[in-house]
Amino acid sequence: MTVRISDQELARRRRKAKEIFEEQEFKAICLFSSYQIFYFTGFSFITTERPIAFIWSFTHRPILFIPLLEREHAQEIYDVEIVTYPEYPDKRHPMEHLRDLLCDLELEGKKLGVDSDGYSGGYGYRGPKLSEILAAEVVIVGETIERMMWIKSPEEIALLKESAKWANLAHSLLQEYTRPGRNETDISVQASYEASLAMIRALGPDYRPTRTGMPVHADFRGQIGARSAIPHSLPTNVYIRKGDVLITGASADIGGYGAELERTMIVGQPSDKQRRFFELMVAAQDFAFEKIKPGRRCAEVDWAVRNFYAKEGIMNYWRHHTGHALGIRMHEAPFLDIGDNTIIEPGMVFSVEPGIYIPGFAGFRHSDTVVVTEHGIERLTYYPRDLASLIID
Amino acid sequence: MTVRISDQELARRRRKAKEIFEEQEFKAICLFSSYQIFYFTGFSFITTERPIAFIWSFTHRPILFIPLLEREHAQEIYDVEIVTYPEYPDKRHPMEHLRDLLCDLELEGKKLGVDSDGYSGGYGYRGPKLSEILAAEVVIVGETIERMMWIKSPEEIALLKESAKWANLAHSLLQEYTRPGRNETDISVQASYEASLAMIRALGPDYRPTRTGMPVHADFRGQIGARSAIPHSLPTNVYIRKGDVLITGASADIGGYGAELERTMIVGQPSDKQRRFFELMVAAQDFAFEKIKPGRRCAEVDWAVRNFYAKEGIMNYWRHHTGHALGIRMHEAPFLDIGDNTIIEPGMVFSVEPGIYIPGFAGFRHSDTVVVTEHGIERLTYYPRDLASLIID
Repeated sequence: MTVRISDQELARRRRKAKEIFEEQEFKAICLFSSYQIFYFTGFSFITTERPIAFIWSFTHRPILFIPLLEREHAQEIYDVEIVTYPEYPDKRHPMEHLRDLLCDLELEGKKLGVDSDGYSGGYGYRGPKLSEILAAEVVIVGETIERMMWIKSPEEIALLKESAKWANLAHSLLQEYTRPGRNETDISVQASYEASLAMIRALGPDYRPTRTGMPVHADFRGQIGARSAIPHSLPTNVYIRKGDVLITGASADIGGYGAELERTMIVGQPSDKQRRFFELMVAAQDFAFEKIKPGRRCAEVDWAVRNFYAKEGIMNYWRHHTGHALGIRMHEAPFLDIGDNTIIEPGMVFSVEPGIYIPGFAGFRHSDTVVVTEHGIERLTYYPRDLASLIID
Repeated sequence: MTVRISDQELARRRRKAKEIFEEQEFKAICLFSSYQIFYFTGFSFITTERPIAFIWSFTHRPILFIPLLEREHAQEIYDVEIVTYPEYPDKRHPMEHLRDLLCDLELEGKKLGVDSDGYSGGYGYRGPKLSEILAAEVVIVGETIERMMWIKSPEEIALLKESAKWANLAHSLLQEYTRPGRNETDISVQASYEASLAMIRALGPDYRPTRTGMPVHADFRGQIGARSAIPHSLPTNVYIRKGDVLITGASADIGGYGAELERTMIVGQPSDKQRRFFELMVAAQDFAFEKIKPGRRCAEVDWAVRNFYAKEGIMNYWRHHTGHALGIRMHEAPFLDIGDNTIIEPGMVFSVEPGIYIPGFAGFRHSDTVVVTEHGIERLTYYPRDLASLIID
């Protein structure tokens, strides 16, 4: 049972980064973003006012720079040296400790790749830029690392497939528990709870969530009735009624990876107008599936989908691009968007989710997670997409 | 029933910001952080690759700059003009649309306060700094706004008190369901689920969560047995055993505000060693409560607590500062930390949570949320703190 990225894969990622950055004459990388640190270490942590950094001077063992309170927590991590500072803000600012460390590594005056020029913070953190406290050539290389993350490995795809499986269970329960008179939150927490229990029992003690909250969830996020036309609504705590169009979402945290599964459901027999837009939305998604092929540009897929909307005369109901990459984060680059000229490659993972939103009436969107193969795509999420399967009656 | 910040209070916040920034000869503010936007608008939204900004040229109505997909969602917001851009990245970058808007507002060449120089992004976003695309004096003023947020209003304190109430319910259920042989996730999702259901029924349709997931939660975050000594552990999916020390956490989302409640519990009759450290931890927290008074510096509280640790000979088991401010975010400045010389004022809200962590043995921490009053503090969280009440037997 694979429930997290292996140490071998972490080693491969580090080797690849070393290769890329040494070729560009970097002496080290220093990463502050929790997602990039996770990518190279598998370390998930609660982000706070205390900076955490992954520092790799390529002639030295990788270092995890952490506050004292993470010391014992970080001891389980694959092949890193732990360096701690006492606390933030403390008498001496963590960035001063970091400067000392970088000087000890003889990085002064050298070319250093960073994802951001210092800790980006939030949570009340204040501090200097790295370039303000260290005399070095500090270059933002976040995009280079993001590009490494674009192509998913077989291990990553396996985790996303496992995630799709438990999202499927949560969504099945959500659909089963949805009926007129029940409260939105009520249904979604029940489905999420039961799916989470089933998953942790099925996967056993090797499984560990990478964050707090439900490890599996399925919900409506407020997209109920007329509010289904609000693509990024939030929970509204309303009661389901007959005639409602519902848009759902489900995912599961498997080793920090989560597939995206979303469906449109209709409570009671659909009206002609509901049926028409539902079928158009499914057609748009089928059309998008077909257009995703290695060698094409992301923009071409979204242009094709927008042309479909224009041809059907529904551009008034268009609200967002066709999809986005995903993996560790729920949204990642590249985007299936007319402004993104990235060439699609095997191993990229996208959500495919053209939506139709008629204000005051209803919204229609399925989202499936697909991986790009040699000749097209493989769908990782497999919940039924047809109208008959999605009527609550 | 108050379940969110009133429009009157949003208006007061805006008036105060206008006063502060006009005095410093700013012509406008432009905020990108979701928390600062929420503070001035009450608008909660899902952050993605698409920038969102709150722009206020003080001679004009406040503007919310959003992607098209948020248009209908944003229409419920108090007194803002909505300006949309189509999508990110699209043919034309959102920041170019933003520049046009700022030029239309005649802000070119003017003094403009921002929380960050452009959208800080994540989620695959890439874009220029605001100062790179607009010829204006762009000044980072995030800290000035954070300082406004330090002093909580009566409405904010009322929301935190309401949050403490439902956190108390969730924690009661968590304690009730904790017993040897039960799984960590199992217990926490059951308690969170039942408390969430009770709350949404009790508060009724006026209540709206500001985010997805459980509106109320109580959990262990992996701090079970020897892992209770890891202050920021994450869930581990283990089974509770007799003799375990457990550290818990509970909160509830009320209008975007959340109190912090954490307790140490012991499964079975405590050993002498467990009892000793439990009592020391309670004494440290009592000591910290006493030290928080308006007019004192945050640093003084933390120095006093550290001296207590030194006097008791337990500095080896110290891992973090005494506490942090909180409100919209779970951690905010100022900090009860020797490095923070902020003067404590009435209306500030802090967590008070000195912890004792003995690696390989156990950790001990209660966290309570307190508001500073004219003469000391009022505790907002009120779950029992004494050992007898926290033994699972």
